[in-house]
Amino acid sequence: MSYELYYWPGIARRGEFVRLALEEAGVAYVDKAREPGAEETLLALLERSDLLHPPFAPPFLKHGNVLIGQTAAILLYLGERHGLAPTDQAERLWVHQIQLTIADLVSEAHDTHHPLGAHLYYEEQKPEALRRARDFRENRIEKYLRWFEEITARKREDGPYLVGDRVTYADLSLFQVTEGLLYAFPRAANAVLADCPGVAALRQAVAQRPRIRSYLESDRRTAFNESGIFRHYAELDR
Amino acid sequence: MSYELYYWPGIARRGEFVRLALEEAGVAYVDKAREPGAEETLLALLERSDLLHPPFAPPFLKHGNVLIGQTAAILLYLGERHGLAPTDQAERLWVHQIQLTIADLVSEAHDTHHPLGAHLYYEEQKPEALRRARDFRENRIEKYLRWFEEITARKREDGPYLVGDRVTYADLSLFQVTEGLLYAFPRAANAVLADCPGVAALRQAVAQRPRIRSYLESDRRTAFNESGIFRHYAELDR
Repeated sequence: MSYELYYWPGIARRGEFVRLALEEAGVAYVDKAREPGAEETLLALLERSDLLHPPFAPPFLKHGNVLIGQTAAILLYLGERHGLAPTDQAERLWVHQIQLTIADLVSEAHDTHHPLGAHLYYEEQKPEALRRARDFRENRIEKYLRWFEEITARKREDGPYLVGDRVTYADLSLFQVTEGLLYAFPRAANAVLADCPGVAALRQAVAQRPRIRSYLESDRRTAFNESGIFRHYAELDR
Repeated sequence: MSYELYYWPGIARRGEFVRLALEEAGVAYVDKAREPGAEETLLALLERSDLLHPPFAPPFLKHGNVLIGQTAAILLYLGERHGLAPTDQAERLWVHQIQLTIADLVSEAHDTHHPLGAHLYYEEQKPEALRRARDFRENRIEKYLRWFEEITARKREDGPYLVGDRVTYADLSLFQVTEGLLYAFPRAANAVLADCPGVAALRQAVAQRPRIRSYLESDRRTAFNESGIFRHYAELDR
């Protein structure tokens, strides 16, 4: 029984965290965002009134009769099933805690270009975006990346990953977030990363995992663009 | 072994979701936010360099050697231990998915008064808050509450709760969010709630649970105020 991933077509965004986990797990999945009529399929599913567990918003994952929304909940599910989370209960919760903090960072990154809300275009909230992005650049990127750096520095096990000696879904998500920050805020993110060797090593290690490398080189990977969460607007990275 | 809850003193905010779960569970806990020097205790813990699982931000819960941050992760832990989550794995994930959506709503409610970020006072971002709050009031409150309403309407079991026939931590959190919306946006929230009988019944049912009622009447309950997430500024509710 293969997985079906539902998401908006043409943008990486939150769907990409799920894709990376599915790719690393090496399981069969159908990326519904890449099929013709993807948007209509998605909207039709959101409007179905017979679902017992209706998702609030994409991404969501269908697996037989199971339908799961919320990126972190999807990863909790996939992590347990495919060895992308520790078996120890406390360690597994720790990975989830890290993932929820990554989700907060993702929201804040989004709000740099949409501080007044998603109902307006970036062009309609540019002065506000400049003010919000300055704080993100000057304070938040560093606060988050230093926290991840501390985690890699304090752990007892060897290896480049956040928890234990095996890759988890949180590592894959941190890879994606780091890539996103480097795309959107190259000046600010490179400056912080230069002082975060643990995060930089983790990013390299994830990129070099055979399945991830092959995914990144394939046409299944969606490039960052200015419809996504991580957008490069030069004026926001000054 | 009793629980210790760490949070900023004097404000309800995200700590309140954890308090409600601890109160409903009927377990012993120390609310460190109510002790003298609470802020110093909290900051000292955040700055400790020997923690293997350092939290990014409060609230966090200490239970023996276990230290957990992120509200939803804390509730996942408490829910399993104290019967505030279903035993069935798929239902348990569904409760968590709802909780993560509540967390998104909480973030959006916060951003109505701090669209440019938490580093500035409300007074420094008032015109922006007016614009952001309008969208929240006119679109987002209804979108979220209608989703919760649908969940109560579609479920197969009897009873006022979101999942199954027993109260879960997501019900307690939805109660808190509804109270918060009614405090911050009485006009907008009352208008939507009038059309959401399921959510209104859930709110009543939670408030009338013996342990919750006794908690709400006690001095352990922190009232909403203008330092919290849900703030009543009349100009944002017009």
